[in-house]
Amino acid sequence: MGVLRMGYAHVRVTDLAEAKKHYTYTLGMKVTAEDGNKVYLKGWDEWDHHSVVIEEGGVGVVKFGFKVEKLEDLARFEKQGQAFGDCIVERMSKGDNLEVGDGVRFTTPGEHVIEVYHDMSSVGNEVGFHNPEAWPRHQEGVAVPAIDHALVVCQDPTLSESFFREVLDFYPTERVQPELESKECMATWLSAGQKIHDIAILGGPVQGKLHHFAFQLEDWSAVLKAADIFSMDDVSIDIGPTRHGITRGETIYFFDPSGNRNEVFAGGYRAYPDRPCVVWTPDQLGKGIFYHDRKLNEAFTSVWT
Amino acid sequence: MGVLRMGYAHVRVTDLAEAKKHYTYTLGMKVTAEDGNKVYLKGWDEWDHHSVVIEEGGVGVVKFGFKVEKLEDLARFEKQGQAFGDCIVERMSKGDNLEVGDGVRFTTPGEHVIEVYHDMSSVGNEVGFHNPEAWPRHQEGVAVPAIDHALVVCQDPTLSESFFREVLDFYPTERVQPELESKECMATWLSAGQKIHDIAILGGPVQGKLHHFAFQLEDWSAVLKAADIFSMDDVSIDIGPTRHGITRGETIYFFDPSGNRNEVFAGGYRAYPDRPCVVWTPDQLGKGIFYHDRKLNEAFTSVWT
Amino acid sequence: MGVLRMGYAHVRVTDLAEAKKHYTYTLGMKVTAEDGNKVYLKGWDEWDHHSVVIEEGGVGVVKFGFKVEKLEDLARFEKQGQAFGDCIVERMSKGDNLEVGDGVRFTTPGEHVIEVYHDMSSVGNEVGFHNPEAWPRHQEGVAVPAIDHALVVCQDPTLSESFFREVLDFYPTERVQPELESKECMATWLSAGQKIHDIAILGGPVQGKLHHFAFQLEDWSAVLKAADIFSMDDVSIDIGPTRHGITRGETIYFFDPSGNRNEVFAGGYRAYPDRPCVVWTPDQLGKGIFYHDRKLNEAFTSVWT
Amino acid sequence: MGVLRMGYAHVRVTDLAEAKKHYTYTLGMKVTAEDGNKVYLKGWDEWDHHSVVIEEGGVGVVKFGFKVEKLEDLARFEKQGQAFGDCIVERMSKGDNLEVGDGVRFTTPGEHVIEVYHDMSSVGNEVGFHNPEAWPRHQEGVAVPAIDHALVVCQDPTLSESFFREVLDFYPTERVQPELESKECMATWLSAGQKIHDIAILGGPVQGKLHHFAFQLEDWSAVLKAADIFSMDDVSIDIGPTRHGITRGETIYFFDPSGNRNEVFAGGYRAYPDRPCVVWTPDQLGKGIFYHDRKLNEAFTSVWT
Repeated sequence: MGVLRMGYAHVRVTDLAEAKKHYTYTLGMKVTAEDGNKVYLKGWDEWDHHSVVIEEGGVGVVKFGFKVEKLEDLARFEKQGQAFGDCIVERMSKGDNLEVGDGVRFTTPGEHVIEVYHDMSSVGNEVGFHNPEAWPRHQEGVAVPAIDHALVVCQDPTLSESFFREVLDFYPTERVQPELESKECMATWLSAGQKIHDIAILGGPVQGKLHHFAFQLEDWSAVLKAADIFSMDDVSIDIGPTRHGITRGETIYFFDPSGNRNEVFAGGYRAYPDRPCVVWTPDQLGKGIFYHDRKLNEAFTSVWT
Repeated sequence: MGVLRMGYAHVRVTDLAEAKKHYTYTLGMKVTAEDGNKVYLKGWDEWDHHSVVIEEGGVGVVKFGFKVEKLEDLARFEKQGQAFGDCIVERMSKGDNLEVGDGVRFTTPGEHVIEVYHDMSSVGNEVGFHNPEAWPRHQEGVAVPAIDHALVVCQDPTLSESFFREVLDFYPTERVQPELESKECMATWLSAGQKIHDIAILGGPVQGKLHHFAFQLEDWSAVLKAADIFSMDDVSIDIGPTRHGITRGETIYFFDPSGNRNEVFAGGYRAYPDRPCVVWTPDQLGKGIFYHDRKLNEAFTSVWT
Repeated sequence: MGVLRMGYAHVRVTDLAEAKKHYTYTLGMKVTAEDGNKVYLKGWDEWDHHSVVIEEGGVGVVKFGFKVEKLEDLARFEKQGQAFGDCIVERMSKGDNLEVGDGVRFTTPGEHVIEVYHDMSSVGNEVGFHNPEAWPRHQEGVAVPAIDHALVVCQDPTLSESFFREVLDFYPTERVQPELESKECMATWLSAGQKIHDIAILGGPVQGKLHHFAFQLEDWSAVLKAADIFSMDDVSIDIGPTRHGITRGETIYFFDPSGNRNEVFAGGYRAYPDRPCVVWTPDQLGKGIFYHDRKLNEAFTSVWT
Repeated sequence: MGVLRMGYAHVRVTDLAEAKKHYTYTLGMKVTAEDGNKVYLKGWDEWDHHSVVIEEGGVGVVKFGFKVEKLEDLARFEKQGQAFGDCIVERMSKGDNLEVGDGVRFTTPGEHVIEVYHDMSSVGNEVGFHNPEAWPRHQEGVAVPAIDHALVVCQDPTLSESFFREVLDFYPTERVQPELESKECMATWLSAGQKIHDIAILGGPVQGKLHHFAFQLEDWSAVLKAADIFSMDDVSIDIGPTRHGITRGETIYFFDPSGNRNEVFAGGYRAYPDRPCVVWTPDQLGKGIFYHDRKLNEAFTSVWT
């Protein structure tokens, strides 16, 4: 019945060994495969083969994968992409991505590459599915359970939002609009299900860029633990711990060693398509983004990869 | 595309004034209507007209409402109910329930009354949808944001599970089974979307009974605050604060003044239909239900309304 | 046996009504007396008459009071002050301060006024001392239970530290020193008992100034709640929520409407005189002060009152 | 100036290997020495050589050590013990206890052995005292930072309280009394400084017994983590997570493999000798001990070692 979730984020890193240490030792992900200049990783509560791919050579986002519930979703999305027009639509084949099945690859109007697929090899999570413990008894670092969402940057967020709404059946949960009644948006948070956002889009002077991709955390206590570990491990923190006004989520923005921005994210309310979309106006944008500081920091609108 | 969530729980109470005090002063819900022997209530983050109905006269569950995403879901569910056979299917009309539109009423094989509907009057939540604060500055008691799920009791949980799977498109996230490989279940937790459970079914010697209905809480800290308030307000606690092994949720079971069991529930992982269903076997049932005590208390399998 | 705790902070404010609103509506203190241009306030878990005095006219610290355990402590401290030499020592009389008994007033080498006293009228806390509840069922705003400590600024922190050590029997728990082995300090945190600090002293270009005075909070969850309320109430946040490396405390710095810096502070380890004093060197000062940001913000070393 | 804190608890265990696993693998203490049938352990934030001694052979408390601030405290306490009369007073010598200096050994009227001492070898804590991290990056299990207090059982708690007040200069912070105005107590919580209790005494039909000894935890989140680990490690939980009405502390009672009751304890307000002593009456005892359940469980008044 459509997109289940962001299945993977694939990013470039300048130094693979350094990046691997960040995602494993600090964030606590497990390496599930290494393949030439790529390392595949997953969080402890994920059962599919990987949720993050790091590839040596440069910096910045390569593409995102979104997993669909039913095989027939692929054809429907392909058709909707063709009808939408303002995007590139291609078939992708099993094996184009390690352990990932057939799918459809879109290049959005914002120049982000989005792959939708139905199959990824399952490797099981770390507590199993038979009388499981609540969490793994032995953990490393922040021990992120799973990937959560991404925020991407492009020049026309309203158009990119239309892509996600019309082609992939997402719906907006919160929007920054020039005015209270407006179809235009300066930024938008979109859900494919009941998560407060699976992807968000921020308007900026560039195309095809990543603002950050995020990992789930249990709660505000886990956010403090993460911040402490970032300090111990000399991870560069952009901002946080703090709360977002938008989504109500509890958060830290930080950078991987190559400069890709990561986030750890807890809380956030449950999204429903019949819930009125929350609208933020520019005068309250600072509070919307960083609820406590009530102003954007410089990096927010200038650092993306 | 189907059921969004449990929209309301309607229960009988022996003393309306006493019950109203419990749901408002202790739990912090707002009264949105009073109508003869019924009081309608909602949590602060709910925008639909009500999520709990208390009706004077006796004790125990009257029925549950589930809201659907699209009007055409109603006809589809009606048809699926007729095909399923082992249930009563009736049309219900706008006005049968205060502020609720047309719908379909099912009596499940476990003799629970389930109403599905598409429309309920919207009254807005308490922070609004325009540059909202993260939560209401002034709150009462536990200040539950919203209803979450219910656990019901009947004699054939496997059959009732089939009803929710085949008629209403729910899927099980966790099951207690006599053996690891078994189609039978002794209890089952079912999701209609990405919430870890929208309804759960427990096998017992009776039909049509309520084990508990639950309210969401933000996190483990909110659970402690709730427990403290229950003590201050002389609310009878059944068990908790503790964790469930099943769902991983953080919980308190407690009773309203008439003896209907309520729950406050935080945490729980995000459900997906492609996640392997978790299976519990009877030898680990105690740990599954109450993760810390690792045994059922007497009330769990004997007190229902 | 010496100083029990900081009993009161007395500060000037530019607008009494505005300040009163900050300390009562936002911080949740109670007014226990109003007296001309002064308002007296206490937190919910304090039993003595007041812990904060706000006085209209200007901005900045007037003085601090420290309560002693035994009446004879006053004479001993007076004698130790006279022996120390580098301070002004005066007797103060019952009634010099509302509801406060006889005492001794010191002007420290850093030009801070410190009053020690044995008696203050007791008005009881808000839960009482007979089968008490864990906290008051009805609270306002942040609902600070009690004052905690202050950080003051002067030109010679080593000398001021000597005053607190030799005259008032405090001992340092953490120090910032130019080198690992050094009697000099650039800042020092001092305890009179087992609290991680009752007063701290920061070196700067001025004398007799206040950096901040702090209120206790229960834990990291209470810190988030406080930050949210500051945002709702338009309180200016200096930094936080974050952790201090020094003391390990969880914190927010913020300003009252007149610009006096306040802090809410949770956690921190228990101090003992036989615990080795923690030493920080200037290269790690940023991490010592703000454990997550790992650098001082501009305000830290330039804004004091 | 008197007792600083409980320095060590020395208990018998039936199986040393099993007990060692409990205190190291589950609780995360470090072994600092092994000596025939004894193992010495400390928490990560303790700098003295050990805080727990487990000795093979039986079950139950052997003795407690309390560290004093000044060497001359020993002679004063010895004299006060002789004046008190109703106790045995002996000198103990350096080497009587591994790594512990000279001291005085008391047998209280409740037949508990209490050793006071001034010197124990310092081995440092796990983060050091020079630009330290907030906590150790790698931890095992619950990772208790330090021992906190003990509750002991004897026939005349009022008399034993007098011992701690008159001989060792403790003061009561909370008491259970037959009536609101009464010098008698059925249980008493005593502080030597500003911790809410360093020792507590419960009346019962036996002499010289241990109810439990406790470890500090950071906060309510750490209590949940501990409870989860106890479940994973098959540790027998007596009760909790819950709150005490008395002390307001957040708690779990559990048993080591030999049946000695342990506690993890967070929160609790700061004690001061000028704070009115809290009085509980028998009708509210259940709420005083277990604030949420509001009744004693059977084990509370019958299981001690």
